[in-house]
Amino acid sequence: MKLLILNGPNLNLLGTREREIYGEDNLDDILSGLKSRFPEIQIEHFQSNVEGELINALHEASGKGYAGIVFNPGGYTHTSVAIADALAAITVPAVEVHISNLYSREGFRQISLTAPHAIGVIQGMGVAVYALAILYFRDLYNAG
Amino acid sequence: MKLLILNGPNLNLLGTREREIYGEDNLDDILSGLKSRFPEIQIEHFQSNVEGELINALHEASGKGYAGIVFNPGGYTHTSVAIADALAAITVPAVEVHISNLYSREGFRQISLTAPHAIGVIQGMGVAVYALAILYFRDLYNAG
Amino acid sequence: MKLLILNGPNLNLLGTREREIYGEDNLDDILSGLKSRFPEIQIEHFQSNVEGELINALHEASGKGYAGIVFNPGGYTHTSVAIADALAAITVPAVEVHISNLYSREGFRQISLTAPHAIGVIQGMGVAVYALAILYFRDLYNAG
Amino acid sequence: MKLLILNGPNLNLLGTREREIYGEDNLDDILSGLKSRFPEIQIEHFQSNVEGELINALHEASGKGYAGIVFNPGGYTHTSVAIADALAAITVPAVEVHISNLYSREGFRQISLTAPHAIGVIQGMGVAVYALAILYFRDLYNAG
Amino acid sequence: MKLLILNGPNLNLLGTREREIYGEDNLDDILSGLKSRFPEIQIEHFQSNVEGELINALHEASGKGYAGIVFNPGGYTHTSVAIADALAAITVPAVEVHISNLYSREGFRQISLTAPHAIGVIQGMGVAVYALAILYFRDLYNAG
Amino acid sequence: MKLLILNGPNLNLLGTREREIYGEDNLDDILSGLKSRFPEIQIEHFQSNVEGELINALHEASGKGYAGIVFNPGGYTHTSVAIADALAAITVPAVEVHISNLYSREGFRQISLTAPHAIGVIQGMGVAVYALAILYFRDLYNAG
Amino acid sequence: MKLLILNGPNLNLLGTREREIYGEDNLDDILSGLKSRFPEIQIEHFQSNVEGELINALHEASGKGYAGIVFNPGGYTHTSVAIADALAAITVPAVEVHISNLYSREGFRQISLTAPHAIGVIQGMGVAVYALAILYFRDLYNAG
Amino acid sequence: MKLLILNGPNLNLLGTREREIYGEDNLDDILSGLKSRFPEIQIEHFQSNVEGELINALHEASGKGYAGIVFNPGGYTHTSVAIADALAAITVPAVEVHISNLYSREGFRQISLTAPHAIGVIQGMGVAVYALAILYFRDLYNAG
Amino acid sequence: MKLLILNGPNLNLLGTREREIYGEDNLDDILSGLKSRFPEIQIEHFQSNVEGELINALHEASGKGYAGIVFNPGGYTHTSVAIADALAAITVPAVEVHISNLYSREGFRQISLTAPHAIGVIQGMGVAVYALAILYFRDLYNAG
Amino acid sequence: MKLLILNGPNLNLLGTREREIYGEDNLDDILSGLKSRFPEIQIEHFQSNVEGELINALHEASGKGYAGIVFNPGGYTHTSVAIADALAAITVPAVEVHISNLYSREGFRQISLTAPHAIGVIQGMGVAVYALAILYFRDLYNAG
Amino acid sequence: MKLLILNGPNLNLLGTREREIYGEDNLDDILSGLKSRFPEIQIEHFQSNVEGELINALHEASGKGYAGIVFNPGGYTHTSVAIADALAAITVPAVEVHISNLYSREGFRQISLTAPHAIGVIQGMGVAVYALAILYFRDLYNAG
Amino acid sequence: MKLLILNGPNLNLLGTREREIYGEDNLDDILSGLKSRFPEIQIEHFQSNVEGELINALHEASGKGYAGIVFNPGGYTHTSVAIADALAAITVPAVEVHISNLYSREGFRQISLTAPHAIGVIQGMGVAVYALAILYFRDLYNAG
Repeated sequence: MKLLILNGPNLNLLGTREREIYGEDNLDDILSGLKSRFPEIQIEHFQSNVEGELINALHEASGKGYAGIVFNPGGYTHTSVAIADALAAITVPAVEVHISNLYSREGFRQISLTAPHAIGVIQGMGVAVYALAILYFRDLYNAG
Repeated sequence: MKLLILNGPNLNLLGTREREIYGEDNLDDILSGLKSRFPEIQIEHFQSNVEGELINALHEASGKGYAGIVFNPGGYTHTSVAIADALAAITVPAVEVHISNLYSREGFRQISLTAPHAIGVIQGMGVAVYALAILYFRDLYNAG
Repeated sequence: MKLLILNGPNLNLLGTREREIYGEDNLDDILSGLKSRFPEIQIEHFQSNVEGELINALHEASGKGYAGIVFNPGGYTHTSVAIADALAAITVPAVEVHISNLYSREGFRQISLTAPHAIGVIQGMGVAVYALAILYFRDLYNAG
Repeated sequence: MKLLILNGPNLNLLGTREREIYGEDNLDDILSGLKSRFPEIQIEHFQSNVEGELINALHEASGKGYAGIVFNPGGYTHTSVAIADALAAITVPAVEVHISNLYSREGFRQISLTAPHAIGVIQGMGVAVYALAILYFRDLYNAG
Repeated sequence: MKLLILNGPNLNLLGTREREIYGEDNLDDILSGLKSRFPEIQIEHFQSNVEGELINALHEASGKGYAGIVFNPGGYTHTSVAIADALAAITVPAVEVHISNLYSREGFRQISLTAPHAIGVIQGMGVAVYALAILYFRDLYNAG
Repeated sequence: MKLLILNGPNLNLLGTREREIYGEDNLDDILSGLKSRFPEIQIEHFQSNVEGELINALHEASGKGYAGIVFNPGGYTHTSVAIADALAAITVPAVEVHISNLYSREGFRQISLTAPHAIGVIQGMGVAVYALAILYFRDLYNAG
Repeated sequence: MKLLILNGPNLNLLGTREREIYGEDNLDDILSGLKSRFPEIQIEHFQSNVEGELINALHEASGKGYAGIVFNPGGYTHTSVAIADALAAITVPAVEVHISNLYSREGFRQISLTAPHAIGVIQGMGVAVYALAILYFRDLYNAG
Repeated sequence: MKLLILNGPNLNLLGTREREIYGEDNLDDILSGLKSRFPEIQIEHFQSNVEGELINALHEASGKGYAGIVFNPGGYTHTSVAIADALAAITVPAVEVHISNLYSREGFRQISLTAPHAIGVIQGMGVAVYALAILYFRDLYNAG
Repeated sequence: MKLLILNGPNLNLLGTREREIYGEDNLDDILSGLKSRFPEIQIEHFQSNVEGELINALHEASGKGYAGIVFNPGGYTHTSVAIADALAAITVPAVEVHISNLYSREGFRQISLTAPHAIGVIQGMGVAVYALAILYFRDLYNAG
Repeated sequence: MKLLILNGPNLNLLGTREREIYGEDNLDDILSGLKSRFPEIQIEHFQSNVEGELINALHEASGKGYAGIVFNPGGYTHTSVAIADALAAITVPAVEVHISNLYSREGFRQISLTAPHAIGVIQGMGVAVYALAILYFRDLYNAG
Repeated sequence: MKLLILNGPNLNLLGTREREIYGEDNLDDILSGLKSRFPEIQIEHFQSNVEGELINALHEASGKGYAGIVFNPGGYTHTSVAIADALAAITVPAVEVHISNLYSREGFRQISLTAPHAIGVIQGMGVAVYALAILYFRDLYNAG
Repeated sequence: MKLLILNGPNLNLLGTREREIYGEDNLDDILSGLKSRFPEIQIEHFQSNVEGELINALHEASGKGYAGIVFNPGGYTHTSVAIADALAAITVPAVEVHISNLYSREGFRQISLTAPHAIGVIQGMGVAVYALAILYFRDLYNAG
């Protein structure tokens, strides 16, 4: 099973940025942790701060045999019709994840343009959201 | 480890109600499935259609040693300040779950009064959301 | 033909409450009047001030052979997603009735969460709305 | 007893227009049906697509001895302050009817400028709404 | 000096309609009174309940040598972009008048689509508004 | 007959301020003009930029035998609940006037907190509005 | 003099719940304190987390000879049309109280559906609000 | 091929009305130009300032064998649910056209009630929009 | 104990102004009554219609040893950021009072800019609110 | 004549993406078709998913001698102030095109930030919109 | 060069008021510091808590030869149409300054009625904003 | 002292774009002017039209020893949560600058998503805003 973890803007700063909100692990630690925990899964990762590169990555994911995408669109969650359109255009299933609980943050973070085109959303339990999304694709997606 | 699954209004109708949205399993099947999958966890369940009884259940959960609550507030998610206040008042951690992806449904379902007082929200992947929340409490909550 | 008249909060006060809006008949008088006028119909009645009990009544109506429900949700009309979900979940047809004309009252009474899941709404002609709904089920529902 | 059925814009297309919403009967069939069902009542009918002609019809109704008006303002329901003012200006009682359930349609159909000046509203049960309004005037209006 | 008094929907009912708001004089009385008070002015009058006929009247006013239009658009004040466009399209100056004080009435009467294209608005002093508008055209328009 | 002309903030700058909106006459010219035109009327005038002084002036007007107040509240029109409350508290009738047509200006000028408590509003015909308000009190107020 | 103190959802948790907002006294302490302070008054108390039970309590209060109700509707303050309707339906005077100052809290707590049907509201001075409401009924209600 | 050009209110004033917005050609010139440019097409034209007459024209278009309607609803674009309903009711395809670019004009012109029921909208390029809509029906509509 | 009663605009008219809302007592009567009822308290009073003078009074209260301020900001309650900032800037505790129940009045009176900076609000029980606020400072403020 | 066709995000997926909305032709087919249909015009094309690259393309278009730009901003239509600013900054005329009729889609697609800076908008007739825009520049732009 | 520093309500409390927002310097210190730093500039200062006195000060500034006004309107920034009108009426250029960054404060502070009539706004860097505004008038206003 | 001037979309067009708003200097002139005026400061500059590249530049600024960033986010000011998040994530202080006074422009320019994360904002005085921000960092930032 091959999964794509796709991270949007500022997630390259994890571990250095507003730790009280986003936690202390940096992105490499998180990815290493996931690979250790799930050795049976081929985890690929792409991060970009550029909206259009995330769209490109979603487009390209179509032909690469991913069983699913674990997608954290970061700040583009709330503003990008273009990424939302890309999610709607492809057929690889995506689970949207957020490290913080958006429901308890600023008003503009209550709106997700992308989530309606994901099959589900996991948010607010810290970096555990990545592992939960992988668990979903591994154990529950086909069963359910 | 002891967990409380708390289900709000109309979830007693699962399997008979709007199956294209909520799936074909009834509530007993779902609970049996979870108990089979997680024999090492003591799963307790309470469902009510009465707002105040859900508040009572949250209050009473405080003294019963639950490691966590898997809470699907159903239609009260969007309207109950009183349940939200109850969640804020207790210290047992709760994960809010929804079978359907609220972000792709009616506008009034985009608002969750209760979610700001949960530690996280898992929604939209069908009844798998219950298993994911249990997995979170079992494997990831204490790990960080 | 068997019909359920389901009355929500405060309707037990009919005849004593704000008579200039709701009229002078009390609930027993209204029910007696309807039974006299429609002796050929088995009219059952349930009133509750508790949101969840109304949900329970809707759920239970499913298996009881009612040809229809005449439903006055009272104040829950404007606030209860949970009752609206219950109406959507069952298959017995319901006509929503209101004694007063909600369109000429306060702004918050212009919104009906429940009405989209009824097959029709009759409002504003005093307690005659109950008789009209019964007439509809008796003479017109099957006619088309 | 003499009643006026007053139909607004596009209702002349009944039976040809969006049948899944408005049903299969055309306006002549409906009027014939009503006259057959209520031979004891003198039913007059006027339909116009012109807002001002409906206003004229309401003004003229005042002196013609109608016991009531069964009024379907069609699309002008949601936009016409002028028709609403006409309804408020006359003393013949009017019941507003709509073939479809406006509460389950587009947002702009949730607003009725005319309804506050009707004595009641019957909507959503197909063309049966005309018969119900007539029944109301015949049997219930004077009774109370 | 020739002036056009242009009255919109329901103003033909003056004196019979909601007298507590619009006063006790009927339209003929008002016009007679104005002609008596201002014998030196050629006062013409047109009233219609049809939006498009009011537009036609505004269009035709252009070539008829009116020094001004005293325009009470009635209920179309609040809803008619088309009449507003007609006012903007012609060059005869118009003063908008309203018998009642719109600022103290319903919210939807606070919006005037037509007023931005009038040179002024006189409202709320009863039928005196017609005389004031005539006085303005007679004594002040050219002086000011 | 004694009338009070009450002018609010910035009206002391008339003739120097934004002449394309407010015209070229200064306040003294306007008052002289009015006194010349209406020698039979005792015209008193007060202008202040201080909200509370306008409230004081309204309070004091009560005992001074004014037949009416011609009131231009300037910028306080749109923001002062306190002046509106003062207008509501006194019994001397007031006509609100504005030199420019507020309906064709910025959105925040479309709201008048004070106008609901005036008996009428005259706006948008330049400084002629003062003369029209005086004419109203002299010739029409008691007549109609 | 007999008074009813009626407490809504979550108020049974006083002293354990969010003490920085609601203070350190529990409900029993508060009631004992009030009874000690006002021995001359017969203070009865009812608390429920169930919306409908509060409605029932209001209905039943009518026949029990209370001089007044001191009512803290808790979270239902902001969401319950049904409780508001109950308050409007009964004739026993009620003073609404809140321990915290709702004006300085979340936006959804700025709206009180129930307060328009109380004779007054006392909020934000901690549990002293209960004593103040009792003082009002004892010393000022009949005097004022 | 037969096409109907249907023009709404004030379009009879083209060439005289606000030329900086709507251009210098009058309606006859435009129609002559189109007939010259497209001699192979039978172009029929109807203009009315009356909302209901436009509805009538749409209704009547159904049986007349038009390949399409080029429809400029003028000011009714933004206010007429009744015309929008008429468009939805008929099966002749319509292209909505506007001479000016509504997106760069007043806020109330940003809303088109009619456009959702057209197959497309062409706006903002002056009177060329009529020719473009004809070109569409002639060359592109059947091509796909 | 020394307390400041601070009254805002129009409260000098108490007893003459809209008595059905504000009662029949004038301000002197109220102050005399309070001084009689609370001889042990040094009650000082200031009233002004000028927003800035109320700000000045709040500033000056800081150094004068008041135990508290009983503040009725009148119409400035709803519009004055500047008074709200003054309340936030000083350390003398203030209780906001209103004679009428703002929750049952116009929409613009539902907003209080000042209340978030008071320690509590007492409203709607007539002039008794002044006595209740004094009782609070005398008996309850220090108690808890 | 040289024209630039500029396509925004996700338009590279045409023919594979949501075909029921966007049609079955892919982008290469469309471009080939246009070049075949308009051999006399030098058609250049640029597509990017990156907002900033579209801005760059607009900037660079200035010096390249294009007679016009046919611009489909895709999802950036609704969110990009930066692209709108770029359109306003250049002098090459642009026609905005959309394959689907935005007026009949989601609410967020009703807003076009870019359209006010185009000279016109053509939408909703499938890929024919590209041909219509080219026809406009070829035959009508200079004529009109 | 002569400059006017004009400070609105509550700025006389600088150094004592909410120091975490507004800093520790009092107004005299700030003015002394500015005079020391800019000995070559004649700095005059006026502070008032009264809205109308600030308007008077702006009016009087016109004839006094100021090169510019450094204006901190305090809380009136967000509420005073009258001050905004005064700024628009005079010709002395004004720079609006705020000690705190309004963009990161309450929603009601995001609106500035006065700023559209200033030539620029400097905010959020503490009392340095005064010095920056003076530097602007001294070094950059005429250069730029 | 080393400062970064960071310019967002379309600012590369300065001097050619809408000169009446943005002035006549091009970006190179502005930078040369600043370097001449401040020879003692090491001024670095980066401009990009790509949102993600601006995010990258902010991220990279962290380790480069800048004393501050002078940031003009251009059109992304109003739409980019992602850039706002980047500003919040880094610790180099930033002053946001805008050449035009956003408060006097379109409504969508009144919202700044980025400004809450800057230490201050300077806008509306033309290109002088860059010099003022540099002056702030050079002379005032550490002083106070």
